[in-house]
Amino acid sequence: MLRSILTQSNFNHYYTFVVRQRSKETLESSLTPDFEDYLSGFWKIVNLQSRSSATASVHVDFLVSFRKAKSMNKRGILSKLRTLMSSTAHLTHPINAYIIPSADAHQSEYVAECDLRRAFISGFTGSDGTAIVTATEAALWTDGRYFLQAEQQLTADWTLMKAGLPDTPTDAKWLSTVLPVGGRVGCDPTLLSVEKWKPLSKELKSKGHELVCVEENLVDLLWSDRPDRPCNDLIILSEEETGSSWPQKVSDVRAKLAEEKASAIVLTALDEIAWLFNMRGSEIVFNPVFFSFVVITPETVHLFIDLRKATDKVQKHLSGVTFHSYDTVYKFISTLAENEAASKIWISNKSSYAIYSQIPKDKILLQSSPVAAMKSRKTPEEIKGMEQAQLKDAVALCEFFVWLEKTVPSGSVTEVSAADKAEFLRSQQENFVSLSFDTISSIGPDGAIIHYKPNSETDKRVTTDQIYLIDSGAQYREGTTDTTRTIHLGTPSQYEQECFTRVLKGHINLSTVIFPKGLKGHMLDTLARQCLWEVGLDYRHGTGHGVGAFLNVHEGPCGISFRFSPSEIGLEENMIVTDEPGYYEDGKFGIRIENCVKVVKAKTKYNFGGKDYLTFEPITVVPLQKKMIDASMLTEKEIKWLNNYHSKVRDIVGEELLKQGKKSVYQWLLQETEPLG
Amino acid sequence: MLRSILTQSNFNHYYTFVVRQRSKETLESSLTPDFEDYLSGFWKIVNLQSRSSATASVHVDFLVSFRKAKSMNKRGILSKLRTLMSSTAHLTHPINAYIIPSADAHQSEYVAECDLRRAFISGFTGSDGTAIVTATEAALWTDGRYFLQAEQQLTADWTLMKAGLPDTPTDAKWLSTVLPVGGRVGCDPTLLSVEKWKPLSKELKSKGHELVCVEENLVDLLWSDRPDRPCNDLIILSEEETGSSWPQKVSDVRAKLAEEKASAIVLTALDEIAWLFNMRGSEIVFNPVFFSFVVITPETVHLFIDLRKATDKVQKHLSGVTFHSYDTVYKFISTLAENEAASKIWISNKSSYAIYSQIPKDKILLQSSPVAAMKSRKTPEEIKGMEQAQLKDAVALCEFFVWLEKTVPSGSVTEVSAADKAEFLRSQQENFVSLSFDTISSIGPDGAIIHYKPNSETDKRVTTDQIYLIDSGAQYREGTTDTTRTIHLGTPSQYEQECFTRVLKGHINLSTVIFPKGLKGHMLDTLARQCLWEVGLDYRHGTGHGVGAFLNVHEGPCGISFRFSPSEIGLEENMIVTDEPGYYEDGKFGIRIENCVKVVKAKTKYNFGGKDYLTFEPITVVPLQKKMIDASMLTEKEIKWLNNYHSKVRDIVGEELLKQGKKSVYQWLLQETEPLG
Repeated sequence: MLRSILTQSNFNHYYTFVVRQRSKETLESSLTPDFEDYLSGFWKIVNLQSRSSATASVHVDFLVSFRKAKSMNKRGILSKLRTLMSSTAHLTHPINAYIIPSADAHQSEYVAECDLRRAFISGFTGSDGTAIVTATEAALWTDGRYFLQAEQQLTADWTLMKAGLPDTPTDAKWLSTVLPVGGRVGCDPTLLSVEKWKPLSKELKSKGHELVCVEENLVDLLWSDRPDRPCNDLIILSEEETGSSWPQKVSDVRAKLAEEKASAIVLTALDEIAWLFNMRGSEIVFNPVFFSFVVITPETVHLFIDLRKATDKVQKHLSGVTFHSYDTVYKFISTLAENEAASKIWISNKSSYAIYSQIPKDKILLQSSPVAAMKSRKTPEEIKGMEQAQLKDAVALCEFFVWLEKTVPSGSVTEVSAADKAEFLRSQQENFVSLSFDTISSIGPDGAIIHYKPNSETDKRVTTDQIYLIDSGAQYREGTTDTTRTIHLGTPSQYEQECFTRVLKGHINLSTVIFPKGLKGHMLDTLARQCLWEVGLDYRHGTGHGVGAFLNVHEGPCGISFRFSPSEIGLEENMIVTDEPGYYEDGKFGIRIENCVKVVKAKTKYNFGGKDYLTFEPITVVPLQKKMIDASMLTEKEIKWLNNYHSKVRDIVGEELLKQGKKSVYQWLLQETEPLG
Repeated sequence: MLRSILTQSNFNHYYTFVVRQRSKETLESSLTPDFEDYLSGFWKIVNLQSRSSATASVHVDFLVSFRKAKSMNKRGILSKLRTLMSSTAHLTHPINAYIIPSADAHQSEYVAECDLRRAFISGFTGSDGTAIVTATEAALWTDGRYFLQAEQQLTADWTLMKAGLPDTPTDAKWLSTVLPVGGRVGCDPTLLSVEKWKPLSKELKSKGHELVCVEENLVDLLWSDRPDRPCNDLIILSEEETGSSWPQKVSDVRAKLAEEKASAIVLTALDEIAWLFNMRGSEIVFNPVFFSFVVITPETVHLFIDLRKATDKVQKHLSGVTFHSYDTVYKFISTLAENEAASKIWISNKSSYAIYSQIPKDKILLQSSPVAAMKSRKTPEEIKGMEQAQLKDAVALCEFFVWLEKTVPSGSVTEVSAADKAEFLRSQQENFVSLSFDTISSIGPDGAIIHYKPNSETDKRVTTDQIYLIDSGAQYREGTTDTTRTIHLGTPSQYEQECFTRVLKGHINLSTVIFPKGLKGHMLDTLARQCLWEVGLDYRHGTGHGVGAFLNVHEGPCGISFRFSPSEIGLEENMIVTDEPGYYEDGKFGIRIENCVKVVKAKTKYNFGGKDYLTFEPITVVPLQKKMIDASMLTEKEIKWLNNYHSKVRDIVGEELLKQGKKSVYQWLLQETEPLG
């Protein structure tokens, strides 16, 4: 079945199906009529591009199709949902409001197509947002990245709630103004984490309302052609690639269990499970994960998975692990908790409320998963792989910039064709698996939309008189990349140079800071902004996030953000995070400079408190465009940093370019990495 | 009664009684035999110094007396406490552990003598610490500032728990290892805030134990000569001094009540009540507050206070306020909450659990007090007063440094005599009320003890071959001050200069930062450390705290710390905080540079997002010793800042010195404020 070999993208403007192990021809032959049927109603195929024999993509113009869908039947869907809410056909008691979160049962950032319930009901396709429907109202909360997109996508039936603005009520405050006394607010407990459910429930309770579990998902009842949950083949990584065997990792988890005197731990985050077992999947686009849950006790390991995936090879790799069917996890946990011998069952506060509610309160140990922290400290093998991935990415991006400089003046390059070119060039590198997120390819004003992803409706020509920003990355078998470069293909204005140079100063200030071991990245965020604030500029996003090793491009529990997160852990050697300050001017341009950096020991003259001090070392090796820099604004130290960086890029990438026989790109690199000043 | 006109200090090594409105002679005549009796058992009078006709101090050597007390009867006291814990004479059921917190019923940082229960039971006199006594164990938790002091003061009956160190268990974890199954842990609910009680209760519950309210305080039952709660005259401030009348402030609070649809708010923090009513007291040393509670409803204002304080003048000032006896507040709140019309009663999570437990859960609105935030934004009148106070303080400190430079070489100055001299000089300034905290006066290694306060046992000669640090401040009727200067009276070493200069660079980096309005100070803490981290140095305290206007020298809810506080609010114009980075080398020296700074609008070239940008302006006007600076380490911008600062100090303080006829000090100031470089 074609359906079973598809992996779905996130819903962001573009919809990409990556079809593996098929040639372009095979894929094209699959495209009628079943596939069209499958996409009917919502999806319109816009273009098809062959990447390689291993990968091909179908781009679906999501925005267009969704607009169409909205005008056709959105009002109908809301009214059907309201009927379900007020009847007891699927509910024990009617509810006054229904919450549709954007997450899946694993609280994934990106979700599979079958889990796009919030997008289905609201028409809003951004990666983050919560919809709430009452008898008379329908409201959608999303953050600053998506205000524009949500305004475009929501029909008049919906009220857009711009989360984070001072005048926007929280969901609970809003509910308390629209609900009748003693209102019942329903939600599918698998789709909301404990850390979100509990405060919401408490706040609603304090206003006289109640948050109740709705076991049967009401959106699913209305979604007649909802796709199946994907079930794809699994990839098994070797210990040479990961640096640690899964039994060793399980043993480390068990040591944590013993410390906490817990009798079991439940893992629900898909990237944690993939990391733990040294396996990868292809069930959520960009994220090489597979649908599963895990329970570890001091003696046993239980994997809950679509059993079709438990091939002989997988069973051999996971020798000793007990396999269970994916859906049986809830019952298994409740039985485990009923066991008198069970002391504490450890679950993360990022687990769903459905998991949480299987366990009596006095048997729950609710705290961050130890796997998240373990995974964030990369092994030497993972670091090596990440650096290899960066090198391939650098080759592809250097080729891309050469192509761009050559082709843009002819007027034939658009945001979409540039994104496709960058993807194609990456796909030519060995062990390319997929992109690690939708490419952000934006000219001029589009760059100011921080999470802009071009589509056929918004697509613009890339010109020589505006700033061009590309934020992109890939999954290679060796590792995951994420790089942003901002360039000008003509001559930037003095103001554009000033803004770029201030962003660069912030990037360098963060990249070179020396800090005590264990400091939370949160405390470093200001360093990347200080030079922008100086003249009254700022940017509305965090400065960095953790990056997985051939895993999710965004991972916790470390990062560099102005937002406080109680689950954030301190920075330690061998963690990998991004350093990506920016500046965005609405209607004009966007600037962002992003490297992945690894945390390394710093050599300091003193060592107060025997703490040990750390610093960052860039692992991204892509030149920064010197044309954008006003060198007179840089300090000597900053110029030295830039020249050292470029010298390293020249050495490492230069060698690889020559090895791959890309001589003209090598010539370009030599010129781009000439020292400044 | 002498007793009734005493105000008590905190218990830190030194014990200072400030006796108002009495000449030295009157005071001396009071000192026998009643006064000695009053101090008997614990206090030994060490010296008496006349400050002025308005103020005199009796220094009591607390450490000595407490040691004596400990050796005499501490074992006896613990055993008596254990007897109370195991009997039902004062308890409904016996308890297995008893917690003795250091706070009073208002969760004050400094407490009155009658509230020093933790010091009484343990012998440890630091301002922060929690004692827990079980049938067989007695343990005391305190933080890094007090490890040394606690080691000296605790007898072998006690285990010191060094809070914050990785191997130190939390109180709940420790209890779960020492308690029998189903342990009952008792605590006086008036002495623990809701925000501490609830998580402790929850954690204990998760380990199978229970936190229970012990209504009658068991320490009080053992403390036969426990002093009465002070009851001193109140000071009424004019609207010209405060910039706002109390009815206006009440009306602002009522607007917040309306926003939250709450039917009442309970105020328990003493500085919030003093601020609200434009009144000051003298019932806790250093803090010009008075014991009271307040309840505000949309129509009424209730003040709970020792009714002897409700003089005609006070009643006239508070016309319209209903007076109640101090102790009746709990009953009043529970009756109010029983009232069917009552919707929500707003209490701060810093209120005691006793307040919290008067109100049914569905009627509680538990969130930060709005008064804390209102109080932190100073009025123009308060700013003016604070600057006047700083000016007086600068005169006194300049005089002090002149005296120090002249007197130290003779060998006659000690840490204690220097502290006394600084206090005396301050007391000569008009409208001096008291110190705002115990003076930290330290030479060489003592400077490395961050909260060091000299006493007769630790007192050392101030010499010309070590670094001298003085951190001191005062209450004037106009405002509150807090200044730290670090100097060398001989020639500092190159290393000492390097450390001082790095601290200075951090101080300047923070002082000059431009940041968006509403940013939490938390996000600025790193700026003060960056230059120390660069060479592997750091300091173990926050960088700044809010300062009250003729109120507590430490106030929330804004500050500049690496510790995250959920109640912290963003920085706004007219807030006043300190900027006080440092560096401390155990056994060698301590360096700290502290100014009070006000938050002012910054002029920026751009104004991204229309946010408005802010910066700091020093209001402390005391020269920094240039001898300590290695000018070669400063950037041009830093030298410019220093020279501008000194030029301002010269202008403002110079004029005042001349006005006060202090010509030789003026000459010194001219020299100290000569530009660098």
